[in-house]
Parts: sequence; structure tokens; C-alpha cells
Amino acid sequence: MLIIGERINVITKAQRQAMLDRDKGPIQEMAINQVKNGAGMLDINIGPAEDKGDELMDWIVKTVQEVAHVPLCLDTTNPVAMEAGLKAHDNSWGRAMINSASGEEERLNMMMPLAGKYNSLIIGLTLNKQGIPALAEDRCAIAAEIMGKAVECGVPMEDIYLDPLIMPVPFSQEKSLESIRAIRMFKELNDPPMKTVVGLSNISNGAPKTLRPLLNRVYTALLMYEGLDSAIIDPLEREMIEVIKTVDILMGKTLYAHSYLEM
Amino acid sequence: MLIIGERINVITKAQRQAMLDRDKGPIQEMAINQVKNGAGMLDINIGPAEDKGDELMDWIVKTVQEVAHVPLCLDTTNPVAMEAGLKAHDNSWGRAMINSASGEEERLNMMMPLAGKYNSLIIGLTLNKQGIPALAEDRCAIAAEIMGKAVECGVPMEDIYLDPLIMPVPFSQEKSLESIRAIRMFKELNDPPMKTVVGLSNISNGAPKTLRPLLNRVYTALLMYEGLDSAIIDPLEREMIEVIKTVDILMGKTLYAHSYLEM
Repeated sequence: MLIIGERINVITKAQRQAMLDRDKGPIQEMAINQVKNGAGMLDINIGPAEDKGDELMDWIVKTVQEVAHVPLCLDTTNPVAMEAGLKAHDNSWGRAMINSASGEEERLNMMMPLAGKYNSLIIGLTLNKQGIPALAEDRCAIAAEIMGKAVECGVPMEDIYLDPLIMPVPFSQEKSLESIRAIRMFKELNDPPMKTVVGLSNISNGAPKTLRPLLNRVYTALLMYEGLDSAIIDPLEREMIEVIKTVDILMGKTLYAHSYLEM
Repeated sequence: MLIIGERINVITKAQRQAMLDRDKGPIQEMAINQVKNGAGMLDINIGPAEDKGDELMDWIVKTVQEVAHVPLCLDTTNPVAMEAGLKAHDNSWGRAMINSASGEEERLNMMMPLAGKYNSLIIGLTLNKQGIPALAEDRCAIAAEIMGKAVECGVPMEDIYLDPLIMPVPFSQEKSLESIRAIRMFKELNDPPMKTVVGLSNISNGAPKTLRPLLNRVYTALLMYEGLDSAIIDPLEREMIEVIKTVDILMGKTLYAHSYLEM
């Protein structure tokens, strides 16, 4: 499974400050650390970035790829910043991923053409103006709209990563299983199966701090069982990486060796 | 999920010695400890017990139920000892479980009639003289033979717990997923679905000691996702119990509360 490291994020104080100061140090350190711990891609979340978002994204993409030789998942709702990131992205380490389009018409119309123009991967969030549908079936209907737009823009199906959107178990317990079911159903929307992604940690939002890693880990195992292809997580949580590697062993995706955790 | 505690076992030195000496202390302590930590049933493994097995089983069943008010899973290949255990078992704490019948004709013919006679639950191992079939489909064929014998003996389908038999991932990695698949297929053999059980720890047999609990936990989560009803495990492994409780939360089988681990 592709691990997308979530730690370069405008929400955390140290990273936000480094972004504001254009201070390479903390960002590059966090990038290297995540790759060392198993991230195959790094999420670069600069938020809405309404003020000089394009300049910030250009700077941060170059800053990160200077030291981390992996592709980046560009995370902003600002399409100008997104395009600046796609231009700056060094594709010799793999193609960039747009995070994200959704079933909202305006956002879909802004982001999907960028995926076509820059030959990038793209996350499709299965929500629309009304929010996140309760049923997996209705999320599939939104997925179909996203896939339709992709065809229009010349984006191949295998470049789309569908995200069922994870809801916090403390507030909407009945949705946990529904999002797993959505992963299975998304895969059946195409042949070869559609790719899938989740922003994992939302499952434990609102739960006590001591419980969160446990909920995150167990939920990840169940999602992987249904074929989850990638997840935006914290690769510095060692036990999470251990669970991911163990699921891959039990499902026969990597060959067992006594030392598999160290690989 | 029903947790069947595995710690009263002739294989461990202290328990074996207590069995030989008819020393109640260590056995009762282990019984209480397991129930306190979440076991809803206790496995009583006295081995083949060829010498005075009936007397030992009678003694140990009474010894355990004197302090642990749960039903017992009687684990011996000796049918005389098994019958002594069924006679001694106090059903006011729930019905006993026979561990086990299998597709081997002789064993099936000995154990299934006991389940009918004593109105007990019974584990059906899906192996036969040729061993454990590689494919889940062939294990289903053995399950069907076990179910047929049950009908003959007046044992209702809901009293049978089918066991796909878990193989060690270090030696037969490709079987891990097949046993999970067997759980799903067993459930489809009847309506209401057949019940299922596994002896969990075999998955990590041969793996380094440090890896075993991790492999056990993650495999349990995947089996539970497919509807596993019960597992013979070590309830004193706190992290295993935490994972089991967390799967039940994520699948909506118990109601979420911030304190769910303490319940």
C-alpha cells in the first residue's frame, strides 16, 4: 500500500511557521523523516493559501523535493496554487497527485482539467454540495460523476484515487463500516479496479488521545483487507507502519521473512 | 466475539504440573485471571490424557467451575475423558463445547454423538485423513460432512462451530488468506449462518517471539471482519483484547463510548 505522509501540514504550528518564514529546515527535516519511515509520497498541505498561495506552493514543492526523492500530493483548495505546484513538481520521482477534486461542480471543473494538463494523479472525494452521502451506493454515484469528468479531460481511470471520506467513529459510528463497504464498491466501478485512498486519522477524531492510534491502526487493517491502495497517514507512528506491513504479509502482498518489519 | 481462554493447557509446564498433582491453586488462579480479562469461555486442554483421563477431566472441570462461572471448552482427543467432562460440567453457566470433532470418520463418530447426548456445542475441524485441504472450497466439503453427521445425531446447526484451521504464515504464507476466505464461505453454508471458531495463535507459529503478538492481532482483526464468532486465544494479552474490542466498535457490534476499552 502506498503511504502518503501527512506531516507537512499548515495545521501544525511548527510547519505553519516554517511556511510563513520560508524556512527550509523544519520542512526538509520532516520530509526526510517521513520517507525514512516508509512514506512513498508526501502530502503538502498549505491550506486555502489565499495570499500568494502560488508562490508558497512553488517554493515548498522545490524545497521538499530538494531532499526527498518522492512524488508529492499537493493539498490545497486554491487552483492557482495547485497549478504552481504541478509546474514546480519534479516528475522524475513519480507523478504528482492533486488533493483534491470532489463531486462539487466548481471544484471538479477547476481541478480535473489540471490533472489532464499536467498528466498528474488526482484524488476524487465522494462528496457534493449536500455533503457526504450516508450510503456507499450514493458515494458511488458521485464517483461516477468524477469519472465522467475525467474522461472529458483525458484523465485515465487508473490515475484517479477515489476517497470514500472517513467519518469519526465517536460521532457517527454507523458510518465506519459504510466507508469500508464503499472501498469495495469503488473498486468494482471499473476493470481494472479503481484505485482508492483515505485520509485515515479522521476515524478517531474526537476520541481520547490514548485511543486514537489504536482506532487508526485497526481501521487501516480492515480498509486494507478490502483493497485500499493508499492512505494519508503519519508514517512516524511506528505501530501503524507495523500493522500495514503485517496486513501486506497476511494478504500475501509481500513475501514473509522473519525480518519483514525492518524492510 | 466470544473469547475462549487458552491458558489452561497441558503444554505449559506450570499447568501440567498442577494437573498431575491435582493442585487446584494454579488452575483456579489462571481461570479467574482469564475471565477477568475478557474470556467468556475457557478451553481446558488436558491433551490425549490416555491414563485416567476421565478422572482428570472430571476433577478439572469441577475445579475450574468452582471459581469461574463460565462454560468450558473441553479439549481432548480421548472420548472417555470427554464424556466425563460433559457429565461434570455445570450447564447453569452456559453449555459446554466439545473440542473437537473433525472430518476424520473415527473421531467424528466418537464426538458428534456426545454433542447430541449432552446437548453441547461442538467444534468441527475441517480436516480429514488427508490433512487440511489447501482450498477453502474443499474445507467446505468437509464441513458439509460434519454437518451431515450432526443432523444424524440430532445436533442443531447453530451448535456447531466450524474451524478452518489456521496455518503458520512463516511456512505457508499463501494459506493465511485462504483461511479467512473459508470463514466467509462457512457462514454461507447455512441460513442462519454457521458459527465459526479458530485457534488463533497458530498463524504466528515459527515466527520470532517479538513478532507473534502483532501477527496474531492483525490476523484476528481480518478474521473478525469476515464474521468470526469466537477464537481460542490468550486473554492475558492486553493488546489483543484491545484490538478485538476495537473491531467490535468499528463494525458497530458494540456501542462506542470513550471508555470502551474498560468495558
